[in-house]
Amino acid sequence: MGTFSASEGADRSGEPRVEARLSEVSRPSSPTVVFPEDKPLRLESGQLLAPLSIAYQTYGTLNADKSNAILICHALTGDQHVASRHPVTGKPGWWEALVGPGKPVDTDRFFIICPNILGGCMGSTGPASLNPKTGKPYGLDFPVITIGDMVDAQVRLIDHLGINQLFSVIGGSMGGMQVLEWVTRQRERVATAIPIATAPWHSAQNIAFHEVGRQAVMADPDWRGGNYYEDGVVPKNGLAVARMAAHITYLSEKALQGKFGRNLQDRAARSFSFDADFKIESYLRHQGSTFVDRFDANSYLYITRAMDYFDLENAHGGKLANAFVGTKTQFCVVSFTSDWLYPTRDSKAIVKALNAVAANVSFVEIESDKGHDAFLLEEPEFHATVRGFLTAAAAKRGLAAYARGI
Amino acid sequence: MGTFSASEGADRSGEPRVEARLSEVSRPSSPTVVFPEDKPLRLESGQLLAPLSIAYQTYGTLNADKSNAILICHALTGDQHVASRHPVTGKPGWWEALVGPGKPVDTDRFFIICPNILGGCMGSTGPASLNPKTGKPYGLDFPVITIGDMVDAQVRLIDHLGINQLFSVIGGSMGGMQVLEWVTRQRERVATAIPIATAPWHSAQNIAFHEVGRQAVMADPDWRGGNYYEDGVVPKNGLAVARMAAHITYLSEKALQGKFGRNLQDRAARSFSFDADFKIESYLRHQGSTFVDRFDANSYLYITRAMDYFDLENAHGGKLANAFVGTKTQFCVVSFTSDWLYPTRDSKAIVKALNAVAANVSFVEIESDKGHDAFLLEEPEFHATVRGFLTAAAAKRGLAAYARGI
Repeated sequence: MGTFSASEGADRSGEPRVEARLSEVSRPSSPTVVFPEDKPLRLESGQLLAPLSIAYQTYGTLNADKSNAILICHALTGDQHVASRHPVTGKPGWWEALVGPGKPVDTDRFFIICPNILGGCMGSTGPASLNPKTGKPYGLDFPVITIGDMVDAQVRLIDHLGINQLFSVIGGSMGGMQVLEWVTRQRERVATAIPIATAPWHSAQNIAFHEVGRQAVMADPDWRGGNYYEDGVVPKNGLAVARMAAHITYLSEKALQGKFGRNLQDRAARSFSFDADFKIESYLRHQGSTFVDRFDANSYLYITRAMDYFDLENAHGGKLANAFVGTKTQFCVVSFTSDWLYPTRDSKAIVKALNAVAANVSFVEIESDKGHDAFLLEEPEFHATVRGFLTAAAAKRGLAAYARGI
Repeated sequence: MGTFSASEGADRSGEPRVEARLSEVSRPSSPTVVFPEDKPLRLESGQLLAPLSIAYQTYGTLNADKSNAILICHALTGDQHVASRHPVTGKPGWWEALVGPGKPVDTDRFFIICPNILGGCMGSTGPASLNPKTGKPYGLDFPVITIGDMVDAQVRLIDHLGINQLFSVIGGSMGGMQVLEWVTRQRERVATAIPIATAPWHSAQNIAFHEVGRQAVMADPDWRGGNYYEDGVVPKNGLAVARMAAHITYLSEKALQGKFGRNLQDRAARSFSFDADFKIESYLRHQGSTFVDRFDANSYLYITRAMDYFDLENAHGGKLANAFVGTKTQFCVVSFTSDWLYPTRDSKAIVKALNAVAANVSFVEIESDKGHDAFLLEEPEFHATVRGFLTAAAAKRGLAAYARGI
């Protein structure tokens, strides 16, 4: 009979990775700005957070008048390694299909900044960071944060870099939620915005899936009320289950059926056991185990919570359009037909609100059967859309002159 | 900060219920037939299972020529208490909306039989039953079973009751899969069949959700490799998480949004904690905790496995129509518009296969926003469909004469 193996990968190779991962929390390999104790970040909860570290990566060159900067906001389990090798997993950057020399987000033309989000575990302050009051990792003493808080932390970084206006803010999924908070909180500082595969609020079903994941983590005895760091354990089984459940929502039913169907894994017939008979089972277990290697369980709790709290409509008096009143930002909203996590109707709600305030907005629904994950994949129409939008907007703003270092 | 509370309900009131639940395994309050050691059931795996207990409930009166019997097949977490109070939870029967005196499945006219399935935990043999070889509960020594095995066990019961032909076999969800196995395995013995909200095979997404649930159970240290019975523990946290994940698939996105939306639970504002701020969180935690009170974790593993193994097309040479060649059964296939677990296209595949062999089949897609759960709820059009189909079929077969005991 089969036994639990969602974390097989972690068992095999996890220990060195746990060390590498924890090292990225306290001694990140990325450039990091630290805002000291006397400059706390005021959170939406009213709490003050200090010190505040923001670890980030940049790609390309900032031009003389600092007008070619693009901020990329990452998703729930993403990080700053957009187009550079991940220091823990050794894998290529998560958006190398889109970002790089000559790519749609062209690092020969633009200066790309991607910070690890507040609450993350790759060098920006999060629940795995040291709590100055105790000298130990925060654990659940870390304050509950919001998407708006993440953006306020990013504003600090952009200020620090001396950039007055961002040429563009781009992000998919939770990254798109940050894009929306940027244009509402910093309306003069965002020339163009590309919210991708995202939503202006988290639906009941979105919250439900996150709650399952959180309960899976918290049910793991190795979670220890969030204080697992110093015991040298990780709630890997719970976090793997959380990742497995979430992963299903990232793929369309059609993509799952096409990629895996009912195909068996390395066997000719059913085993009549609880082994991973089916390829889809094996795939999900792998997704669970590799995730545990690179992500902090408490960060997962805090970031999912921030997403669940996200409701731009409610935050603006129950009328989404109010969020965008007076905006001068030029928008390109992108959705994918088979995305059932943040379906096209969510993007349309954003577009409708932008239209209601006569904003400059284009909207593209990309035909894809890849589900929510499409935004991370080679989707030619999506990439052409981003390239076209940025190129036209750059030309309009006279940015073409800065192309390729001229 | 919040702590794990998916099993709060179980902690509060669980212990007496665990006892009541385990008593139903070994000393069911339902009528039970036991097939002894010398009459083993040959399973699809090739293994022999004996002794075999089938606990069941009946409603109404069997007529003299035994022509008014209807078999109801229950779903994954259902049981034989279709229209009678549940002995553990004290709740009304799970299909009382449909089954009873004067109801669409009219107990004044028909003799209703509902057995607890093989692998279940309400008196039929399952992983919580005593293994005759060890004198202890089977745990993971229980053989992996299939939907076909469940039906073969039911055939024993119907034989035992001296019924040659069932007037109808009715079931929703996994119950519908049993209906399909009945008409293929016992083609002379099923006059009419009503497979509801079901599928002829389990899709990759279906398997994926079940695998998440199984891994959640197996990740719970109280699962103990399946041998938790004698230690007096229950993998309640893992099973609660499994139930929460599954429950999301039972409801449509629209139903979740309509019923819960982003409404807060007993509070005016976000708590900035991991408490169940949102009604949907509270609801899911409740679903998890109450499920643990009434269901055996190993049964959950075995039954989900049986469902994942279900593929009527593959079992018939890769052509679903082959399953139904020569059938004389009259079919009424029912699906619901908002069911994304077993969507209408799955029912249409059944209908298409039946049409390919010129079977007598009617198909009704019911407009509902309640998702998969619709088959358990007051859905007037659905109930009218079942009533109409059974009434017409009874009249056609001269069964009307038996109405109301005449």
